[in-house]
Amino acid sequence: MFFTRPLARLIEEFQKFPGVGPKSAQRMAFHVLDLSHEEVRGLADAIIDAKQKVKNCSVCSHLSAEDPCELCLDTRRDQTTICVVADARDVIALERTREYRGLYHVLRGLISPLEGKGPDQLSVKELLIRLHDGAVQEIILAINPTVEGDATVLYLTRLIKPVGIKLSRIAFGLPMGSDLEYADDMTLSKSLEGRREI
Amino acid sequence: MFFTRPLARLIEEFQKFPGVGPKSAQRMAFHVLDLSHEEVRGLADAIIDAKQKVKNCSVCSHLSAEDPCELCLDTRRDQTTICVVADARDVIALERTREYRGLYHVLRGLISPLEGKGPDQLSVKELLIRLHDGAVQEIILAINPTVEGDATVLYLTRLIKPVGIKLSRIAFGLPMGSDLEYADDMTLSKSLEGRREI
Repeated sequence: MFFTRPLARLIEEFQKFPGVGPKSAQRMAFHVLDLSHEEVRGLADAIIDAKQKVKNCSVCSHLSAEDPCELCLDTRRDQTTICVVADARDVIALERTREYRGLYHVLRGLISPLEGKGPDQLSVKELLIRLHDGAVQEIILAINPTVEGDATVLYLTRLIKPVGIKLSRIAFGLPMGSDLEYADDMTLSKSLEGRREI
Repeated sequence: MFFTRPLARLIEEFQKFPGVGPKSAQRMAFHVLDLSHEEVRGLADAIIDAKQKVKNCSVCSHLSAEDPCELCLDTRRDQTTICVVADARDVIALERTREYRGLYHVLRGLISPLEGKGPDQLSVKELLIRLHDGAVQEIILAINPTVEGDATVLYLTRLIKPVGIKLSRIAFGLPMGSDLEYADDMTLSKSLEGRREI
């Protein structure tokens, strides 16, 4: 027992964070002790607040304190395109590119029989509802090129294709700045397969 | 604005932690959202609790929820030796070695004229009080080999030497498993200087 009880407990809590080992957790706990009482109260409040206020948007399932979320309510966005992603983190990553100006739909996971996760646990029904009024003209699937991702894309394709809406999946290939010589076989063959006429 | 307000605020809070960049802070914030409401409450409680309950021991200035601290109260420890360190973190590091079984004294900093930190801001007075009853026979200074560390050691030496108590400083030299060839000059000369007859 190196740490006094409340400190040990705090270190334990921090160690539960992803990518935080014993050393980092210890440093974080000492950081808390170094803060003023008001700063600590602010930190604890921010944690409770985020958990209590951030919910899934009832339209697109993205994380938001508002419902519908800021993205769904933004009329400057292109209302004819929906980009479908697995997770709210993916929305952030796409927004960061400042390339995409349409709407989003967060599936809240991918189909994974191994984890016992089927289409029913995803926000697929909510996606189909959004296609009813005919405003949406294109759906972009921005879904990882993994087994689960491919299964989900296949499932969604079979559902959406019959509706007659344009459906696409983001491109896979060599990442920018990378070297063909060092690319793995899978990436390279995807990159060949996805070649575009110039 | 990529993140909904409460989430952005939480990410900001996490970014204030040492060694936590924007990416890690974001991952930590999402982790909080993934927790159950009870787990989040537990985390916030642990933070508040640590800050409120962990104080400096009135004897040795180590961090503790008890006063005197667990180390000071532990009668199995050698009561004749005090190891003087700059920071509570150093106590943890020394305890981890399981080599030292005496008492500690945490200075709560080092003398640093540049940062306007003088001996008055350190727990030097508290250390001298502990030497009054004559029980302590040796003081080990486990203080970093830096400008501030050396200044503090010099200051403490001038104070403690006249009391007639055995005073030592931990050894500096090649770290275990390192290679003489790659050692820096300072370390190597310290290592020569501190050579021991075999």
